[in-house]
Amino acid sequence: MPRYKITIEYDGTGFVGWQRQDNGLSIQHVIEEAVVSFSHEKVIAFASGRTDAGVHALGQVAHFDLSREYSEKTVRDAINAFMRGHNISVLSAERVDDKFHARFSSVKRSYLYRILNRRSPTALNKKRVWWVPVPLDVNVMHEAAQYLVGFHDFSSFRAVRCQAKSPEKTIDSICVSQVGKEIHINVMAQSFLHHQIRNIAGTLKLVGAGKWEAIDVKAALEARDRRQAGPTAPACGLYFVGVEY
Amino acid sequence: MPRYKITIEYDGTGFVGWQRQDNGLSIQHVIEEAVVSFSHEKVIAFASGRTDAGVHALGQVAHFDLSREYSEKTVRDAINAFMRGHNISVLSAERVDDKFHARFSSVKRSYLYRILNRRSPTALNKKRVWWVPVPLDVNVMHEAAQYLVGFHDFSSFRAVRCQAKSPEKTIDSICVSQVGKEIHINVMAQSFLHHQIRNIAGTLKLVGAGKWEAIDVKAALEARDRRQAGPTAPACGLYFVGVEY
Repeated sequence: MPRYKITIEYDGTGFVGWQRQDNGLSIQHVIEEAVVSFSHEKVIAFASGRTDAGVHALGQVAHFDLSREYSEKTVRDAINAFMRGHNISVLSAERVDDKFHARFSSVKRSYLYRILNRRSPTALNKKRVWWVPVPLDVNVMHEAAQYLVGFHDFSSFRAVRCQAKSPEKTIDSICVSQVGKEIHINVMAQSFLHHQIRNIAGTLKLVGAGKWEAIDVKAALEARDRRQAGPTAPACGLYFVGVEY
Repeated sequence: MPRYKITIEYDGTGFVGWQRQDNGLSIQHVIEEAVVSFSHEKVIAFASGRTDAGVHALGQVAHFDLSREYSEKTVRDAINAFMRGHNISVLSAERVDDKFHARFSSVKRSYLYRILNRRSPTALNKKRVWWVPVPLDVNVMHEAAQYLVGFHDFSSFRAVRCQAKSPEKTIDSICVSQVGKEIHINVMAQSFLHHQIRNIAGTLKLVGAGKWEAIDVKAALEARDRRQAGPTAPACGLYFVGVEY
């Protein structure tokens, strides 16, 4: 059966997240229903990574199988036509080998966490950034973030309900930079624990605000205890940027 | 009476525009009511330029008078506190001389028109960009735009209901550039006619799509006839960027 890989942009606001759930509308549901509408085939869309409620995507990737061959443009445009009214957009569709798996074939995922750091609230980016009105020091946040790069036990930065077998992960890079009035935290790794990036963002905010020293992040990591790291930053600042295969 | 200058960001979606009107909520109304709420004084807020329904602002400027002296931070934060729930934000407040007038003292205004130029619709910027799915040639758009720079009779680019006494204006610069998948049209002038930038954007889109040659823009300008230029581009792509005094 022909397999299709799609790259997807979405505004996570108002969705329960990527995965189908009983308590609300999911991205997965909207996409699968759109595929049914155009192809008249029931499919399961497998995503590269599940995003939580309110988390956005610039380049989520998913795959599904159809019994018929369609052109890549047809798949992209037909799904988009049946998703009108939803803030989800298929950026591209590709015909891929049936060995391709959106989740298991991925070698690197990148995420962006956006903090709006100014005294005035946002008018144009509500639900798109974490608004932090107290001044943050971006340089010390970047310095602190470097303690988290590499292979570590990330128990301190892992959601209590995280289902991963091991708390050990390798973060390839974290870059904290100033972009106008925003602070951007770019993180790359093959895979992440549940809430890992939001817990990192919440911790780096403490450092940026001067409540923690940079070295305290190292101590929090080494404690392997969720209570020793900072709070979970809001979902609305987080963007799934893309996946490498 | 102390005069205050405020710089304002807003999402024009859902507003009837800057100016108070009977048929809906205006930016001016929300700001004036917020000033009343904190100062208990009735004011009129004068804007640098009236924006239409759906047009956004990154740096609109307005002024108003109060009988009491407040710190600049107090004015900014108090207005913002009373505007919660609205997508309007005061970025800064300044105590200015009573000769300052937001509209009449301005020497240069800058606007940005954002076109999202890709086949897939937008998920994250609905009502924030004009989505044009056909490919546009940014270089020929920029070339065509240069015919509009300088002092001209802009009758062809002026709304029929424009109330300006003269159709003659001077455009200081128009720059059309590619920013990722977006095309940005940046325009600077001391002042503009009603719908002038949206009519320019709608005309440049015809050039970018290959329906017009660049030189056709010169002919449209010289015709001094609104019917000879392109259609009015949607309000949602337009941003009032800032004012120089």
